[in-house]
Amino acid sequence: MGMIHANDPSLTSWIPVAPDSDFPIQNLPYGIFKPSNRAPRVGVAIGDFVLDLHVLQETGYFEGFKLPFQIFRRPFLNDFMALGKQKTNRVRERISEILREDNHELRENKIVRHRAVIPMEEVEMQMPVFARDYTDFYSSIEHATNVGKMFRDPDNALLPNWKHIPVGYHGRASSIVLSGTSIKRPSGQTKADTADAPTFGPSKLLDFELEMAFVTNVATPMGDSISTTHAETFIFGMVLFNDWSARDIQKWEYVPLGPFLGKNFASSISPWVVPLEALEPFRVGGPKQDPEPLPYLKQEGPKNFDINLEVAIQPNDGEEHTVCRSNFKHMYWSMSQQLAHHTVNGCNINPGDLYGSGTISGPTPDSYGSMLELSWRGTKPITLPDGSTRKFIEDYDTVVMRGYCKNDNYRIGFGEVRTQVLPAYL
Amino acid sequence: MGMIHANDPSLTSWIPVAPDSDFPIQNLPYGIFKPSNRAPRVGVAIGDFVLDLHVLQETGYFEGFKLPFQIFRRPFLNDFMALGKQKTNRVRERISEILREDNHELRENKIVRHRAVIPMEEVEMQMPVFARDYTDFYSSIEHATNVGKMFRDPDNALLPNWKHIPVGYHGRASSIVLSGTSIKRPSGQTKADTADAPTFGPSKLLDFELEMAFVTNVATPMGDSISTTHAETFIFGMVLFNDWSARDIQKWEYVPLGPFLGKNFASSISPWVVPLEALEPFRVGGPKQDPEPLPYLKQEGPKNFDINLEVAIQPNDGEEHTVCRSNFKHMYWSMSQQLAHHTVNGCNINPGDLYGSGTISGPTPDSYGSMLELSWRGTKPITLPDGSTRKFIEDYDTVVMRGYCKNDNYRIGFGEVRTQVLPAYL
Repeated sequence: MGMIHANDPSLTSWIPVAPDSDFPIQNLPYGIFKPSNRAPRVGVAIGDFVLDLHVLQETGYFEGFKLPFQIFRRPFLNDFMALGKQKTNRVRERISEILREDNHELRENKIVRHRAVIPMEEVEMQMPVFARDYTDFYSSIEHATNVGKMFRDPDNALLPNWKHIPVGYHGRASSIVLSGTSIKRPSGQTKADTADAPTFGPSKLLDFELEMAFVTNVATPMGDSISTTHAETFIFGMVLFNDWSARDIQKWEYVPLGPFLGKNFASSISPWVVPLEALEPFRVGGPKQDPEPLPYLKQEGPKNFDINLEVAIQPNDGEEHTVCRSNFKHMYWSMSQQLAHHTVNGCNINPGDLYGSGTISGPTPDSYGSMLELSWRGTKPITLPDGSTRKFIEDYDTVVMRGYCKNDNYRIGFGEVRTQVLPAYL
Repeated sequence: MGMIHANDPSLTSWIPVAPDSDFPIQNLPYGIFKPSNRAPRVGVAIGDFVLDLHVLQETGYFEGFKLPFQIFRRPFLNDFMALGKQKTNRVRERISEILREDNHELRENKIVRHRAVIPMEEVEMQMPVFARDYTDFYSSIEHATNVGKMFRDPDNALLPNWKHIPVGYHGRASSIVLSGTSIKRPSGQTKADTADAPTFGPSKLLDFELEMAFVTNVATPMGDSISTTHAETFIFGMVLFNDWSARDIQKWEYVPLGPFLGKNFASSISPWVVPLEALEPFRVGGPKQDPEPLPYLKQEGPKNFDINLEVAIQPNDGEEHTVCRSNFKHMYWSMSQQLAHHTVNGCNINPGDLYGSGTISGPTPDSYGSMLELSWRGTKPITLPDGSTRKFIEDYDTVVMRGYCKNDNYRIGFGEVRTQVLPAYL
C-alpha cells in the first residue's frame, strides 16, 4: 500500500533536504501559509521549502483525485482533513511521488515549479487548523506523580481515578496561538498560603507545559463513540503544544471545577501538522497498564510513538539553553485511548479539534516537562549560561519547544513552537 | 433614547399578542429560523409570529441603517451581534417602531407583510448562535452551598475561594443542542464508594441543571480585559440553558481537573435570545457580597435581573409536573462580574460565545435547580402526578425549563428549552 512507499527509507527528493532537516520526503507535514498578496492556502514542508498544494491542484497534478474545488485554497486544514484518511492518504502518496528524485513531472516543469516551490523563509505561516473545541489530557504518569508528590501526599501521589481514566478537561479554544506570537504575562487573583485574603496582580509563577496535541479529521454525530481500534482513523496528525500555565492563579482557583484563568490566557502550537502516517516507523508500545483498563479502553498493538522532545529557554538577547529532554513514548495513556474515552459518552467531535497530551515528563529530573517540576516548586532553580537563574519564566524570556523522531535514515521533525513572554499591562 | 421607547409599558403591536404571551413588543428576542426551501435567517418573535428580518432588509425597511449585505440571511446571529450594541439597538428600535399599533409601514403593505410575518408554528427554529467557546460558571451561592453540604463539610460548605472568585470552567461547545433535540443517556465509568474498581455502563444518576446563559456580541483581542462597568456592552442577550449532568460519571472523574464526560455529552438551549435591553425594567440588585470582592470585580448599581424560572418533568405519555421554581435574581455573582473575571487575565472572547450561570438554586427546597438538590442526593424522591417517583431523570422523561419576567403591564418570556432523554445504546 501507499504508506509503505512514502515511508521508504531510501526515498529522496529532487528538492535538496539537509540530513538534519525536520522535513525530508518521508515527513510531508501540512500547514497553512499566506504568500504575499494572495489568499492563505495549504502547503507541505519539504527541506527548506514549502510546496503550494493549491498551485498543484490548479495545474492538474491531482487530476482524477476528485478533490473538491479549491480544497487547498482555504484558511485552515479543516476541509481537507474532513475528506477522511482514505482520500488524504492518497494525496500524501501523490505528493511523495511528485517530489521523489526520479520523478520529472514537477521538477522539469519550470513554470509551475517556480510557482509551487517556495523558500520557507519567504512565507508567513498561519494557524493550521480551526479548533472549535480543545481538550487537554493529563496522561503522563511521571507528571501526575510529580504534581501529586508536591501538592498532595508523596506516598499516594496518584489520585484513585488516574490509572482507570485518561483524565482530561476542556480548555479555551479561542486563545490558542501560533508559534511566533508573543504572549502577555497574565494577571489574576492569587492567595499566599499565609495570607487571609487573595490579592490581584501579574502572575509570579508563569510556566510552560511541554505537550503535544493531536488533531481530529472528521465530524462524528452526537451519541456516537470511537473505539480504540478505530481511533487512529480519526487522528490526522500531531503538533507541538505549549500549554502556558500561571501556577499561582491556578492554585487558588482550581478547586472544585478545574483550571480556568490559570490556563486560558494562551496556548501555543507549532505550524506544521505531522501526519500520523509519517510517524509509523516510530511506533512503540507504551508503559504497561496496571491495573488493566476497562474493556472500552483496551487496545491492540503498539499505540505510542518515539518522539524526542526538548524545551529551551532563551533570555532576552541571550543564548538558548535546553532545560528539558523528554519523549512522547512515556505517555501512560495513548492518543487512541484518550479519543475512545472522550467519545464513550457520545460526545461528538469535529475536524480541527485539538487534544493536548498533558505535560510530558519522563522518569528523570532533566526530563520533566514544566518549570514547576524542573525547579521542584522553585526549590531547585535552574542556572542559565548567562549566570541568571530561573524558577519560573521571566518577562522577555522566549520558550522554544522542538520535537523529532529519528532513525538511521532520516529525521521526522515537528519544527518548533517559539513564544516570547511580554510583561503584564500595569 | 431609544430603549425607553421600546420598553414603553403602554406600547402595543398591530400583531395580536395574548396577555400571557412570552413575546410582546417589549421583548423582541432574536432567533434563527428556516422557512421551507429557503436559507436560514434571523427572525424576531412577536406574539405567535416570527418577523423575517431578511425580508424587511431586502424590501428597504432598514434603509439608511448601513447594515452589511444580507446581514440577516445567515445561519447564526453572530455576524449581526458583531455589529455592536449601538447598531443592534438601533435595529431593535426600528423593529419596535415597525410593529407598534399606530405604524402603517408594514401593516398596510400587504405583499411584504405576508412574506415577513410568519406563524411561529410554520417555522423550524435552529441554533441561534455559533458558540466557539462555552464557559460554565458556578455562581449560585445556594447551589454551591447545597453541593458542599452533601459532598463535603456541612459546617464549611463553601470552599475558601468561592466568595472571592466567580468560579468557572470551560465546557464542550460542540454538544450544545437546541430545545426539541432529544439526547441519549450517556454511558461511562463510575465507581461505587464500596467498590474496589470502576465499572462501565449507562449513567444511573442523570440530572438537569437549571441555568441561564448569556451570549457575547463582539470579539476582543487577546490581552484585553473587560471591566464590570463596560461588561453589559458586550452582553447581547440571554437564553435558558439546561446543563445536563451525569452525577455518577462526574463524581468519579472530576478530581483534580473538573467535570468532563459527566457534562460534555449534551447541553440544551432555548431558541430565542432575549436582548439585555428587554430585561432593563426587571433589573434588581444582587445578594450583598461579603467579603467585598477585589476592585476588578466591584460594580456600580444593580446588575441582577428578576427572572422567574421553572423546571417541569413530563414522563413518557404523562403530564407535566413542575418540580422547581427559582429566580435568576438569586445569583451571587452577576454576569458583569463573570465576564470581568473571565477576561481579567487577557482571555479573548468572540461573538456567540456562551456563558452558563451555573445551577440557579433559590433559598427554599422547592427552588433548587437540580434533581441532586431537589431529591437531596436521592434521599427525598419527588412524586409525580402519575404516582411514580423520581430521584434523577428516567429514560423517556422530558425536561422543560421556562423563564419569564413579569410586571403589571407585560411579560418578557424566554420561551422554553425542552428535551427528551432516550435510553443509552447497549
